[in-house]
Amino acid sequence: MKKFAVALLATTALATPVLGDELMEAAQDMFKPLPSTMPALADNVVTPEKIELGKALFFDPRLSASGVFSCYSCHNLTTGGDDNLETSIGHGWQKGPRNSPTVLNAVFNEAQFWDGRAADLAAQAKGPIQAGVEMANTPEQVVDTLNSMPQYVSMFQAAFDSDDAVSFDNMAKAIEAFEATLITPAPFDAYLNGDAGALTDDQKAGLELFMDKGCVACHAGINVGGEGYFPFGLIEKPGAEILPEGDKGRFAVTETIDDEYVFRASPLRNIALTAPYFHSGKVWDLKVAVQIMAESQLGDELNDEEADQIVAFLGSLTGTMPEVTVPILPPETATTPRPTAEVLPQ
Amino acid sequence: MKKFAVALLATTALATPVLGDELMEAAQDMFKPLPSTMPALADNVVTPEKIELGKALFFDPRLSASGVFSCYSCHNLTTGGDDNLETSIGHGWQKGPRNSPTVLNAVFNEAQFWDGRAADLAAQAKGPIQAGVEMANTPEQVVDTLNSMPQYVSMFQAAFDSDDAVSFDNMAKAIEAFEATLITPAPFDAYLNGDAGALTDDQKAGLELFMDKGCVACHAGINVGGEGYFPFGLIEKPGAEILPEGDKGRFAVTETIDDEYVFRASPLRNIALTAPYFHSGKVWDLKVAVQIMAESQLGDELNDEEADQIVAFLGSLTGTMPEVTVPILPPETATTPRPTAEVLPQ
Repeated sequence: MKKFAVALLATTALATPVLGDELMEAAQDMFKPLPSTMPALADNVVTPEKIELGKALFFDPRLSASGVFSCYSCHNLTTGGDDNLETSIGHGWQKGPRNSPTVLNAVFNEAQFWDGRAADLAAQAKGPIQAGVEMANTPEQVVDTLNSMPQYVSMFQAAFDSDDAVSFDNMAKAIEAFEATLITPAPFDAYLNGDAGALTDDQKAGLELFMDKGCVACHAGINVGGEGYFPFGLIEKPGAEILPEGDKGRFAVTETIDDEYVFRASPLRNIALTAPYFHSGKVWDLKVAVQIMAESQLGDELNDEEADQIVAFLGSLTGTMPEVTVPILPPETATTPRPTAEVLPQ
Repeated sequence: MKKFAVALLATTALATPVLGDELMEAAQDMFKPLPSTMPALADNVVTPEKIELGKALFFDPRLSASGVFSCYSCHNLTTGGDDNLETSIGHGWQKGPRNSPTVLNAVFNEAQFWDGRAADLAAQAKGPIQAGVEMANTPEQVVDTLNSMPQYVSMFQAAFDSDDAVSFDNMAKAIEAFEATLITPAPFDAYLNGDAGALTDDQKAGLELFMDKGCVACHAGINVGGEGYFPFGLIEKPGAEILPEGDKGRFAVTETIDDEYVFRASPLRNIALTAPYFHSGKVWDLKVAVQIMAESQLGDELNDEEADQIVAFLGSLTGTMPEVTVPILPPETATTPRPTAEVLPQ
């Protein structure tokens, strides 16, 4: 291990940017590479036991009323951490209101959900479990379900070092701990870390356009987005087929008129894997999505080559996926609440 | 590796049954331990490339029309290779007609499905993908989907050593190859292999009852079942809440009056993990299921202790789950057919 660390340092040293690489320096000013370790979480000390528990919970369909859906269902780790649907399908075959965002690197977003209504991943995790159109469960039944399986109770006790550890809050914290491990270092990180050869010429041209045109005004930082809130249609509002009138974005959170059609800037890591795009999930082609953004946010019509180059740059944000072993979950017992497919009136 | 093999042999030698262990000898006559390697498949040469492809396909929700369901959805490797539902929920929130059987060790069943209508796992894999109440897809669209992703095309070419490798048949063969790796050695295997200490006294008492009472007449061989077809209700037909009148079992396959309410004997490996029980999925408690079987198939009313001991024996069939890493799937392209949640009339 020590040997490897030394070798890594040596490589990094060699790859220090040559003087005069202005593009790299400009990028280093605007973006930040992923760290090599998971970040610290607010009010949530992470231990291997907590990560292990969180992984089990993340994969467990018994957190849903029907026994059909788990966190993994819509944040599928085989397909970029999302479900590749316009909007997710949940309990009773109901369609959710917005496109499911990727869980990968989500820990680095300023806040969670398209409108930032959850401060962190622990708060986020509680949402879909209770949403009638998603997992349609209740905190009480989740706690009953977990308490019915002695192996889960032990896992909670080990993760939270307490005899009374099984709670909806602790469930969410464990899920957050697991999700915080889902980090995907990409060629762009190698570039930001000083390796000028990590991007192709097309990707560098795209990066330059991305900064010069102004995309970077909203999509910056560690997740190339995921920070700050901006109106969708700053210059020119897209049509209702892309920006449905009924969904006023952050307005529902703040009830401030200025927040109508305001959304959190999308984090762009792994964006090439997570079609369809926008909160409405109405656009499948990344190039088209880039062109719509340029028009609606910047009032700029990209030519074909420019759009291709920006798409090439975005491809450099596709990272190495975390290796995750399918967990083996505790078996149900006689007291585990039974799944129900029934759709209750909201 | 060599050292480990020698050590293993030595342990096995030490564990050879002592003379006079009649129970073990009787069990060895009726059952067979899992082999230490996956079995050969008919007309399907297995390679690491084919297993890798099959794993990707097994986890890929894009094999379903909606993009929601994969093989993994109902044969969930976190919960014993099944979905722990009465009957599976599929496309359009429709309920399937029968309980989803476990995929674990299924390669050792004589035939697949509750009525044995698929000769092997490759034939089985084609069923749910096309069933309107499950994945609701068509072979044509599956092939279009796979062909739209260059990475899948390469994987098929590597697995089938042919340029024209992408086909519905080859998809099924690859899935079969992966599924054939899902083998779960259990304490009962150690016992059959000669380790008298692998079962508790209760489990041995249960094993003895299992053989003496006659359960073994249907539940024998490598999967403790999964071979042969028998009427459910041989001595006494259970009520319609357990044996619904509308489902005549193997009669639908053979159209022979003798096959009314005939089903393939359930394989019992990992049965403690795969509630609810029977093709109807109506019984959640394994002890109750054992009692119903004794009454309906053997005309025998088990006392409480006997039922508990048989359940203890069945617990010795819970095996070590295979370690499976979540595959990273090829990303969609512009030509990948889009998912649709629409429910078409059958």
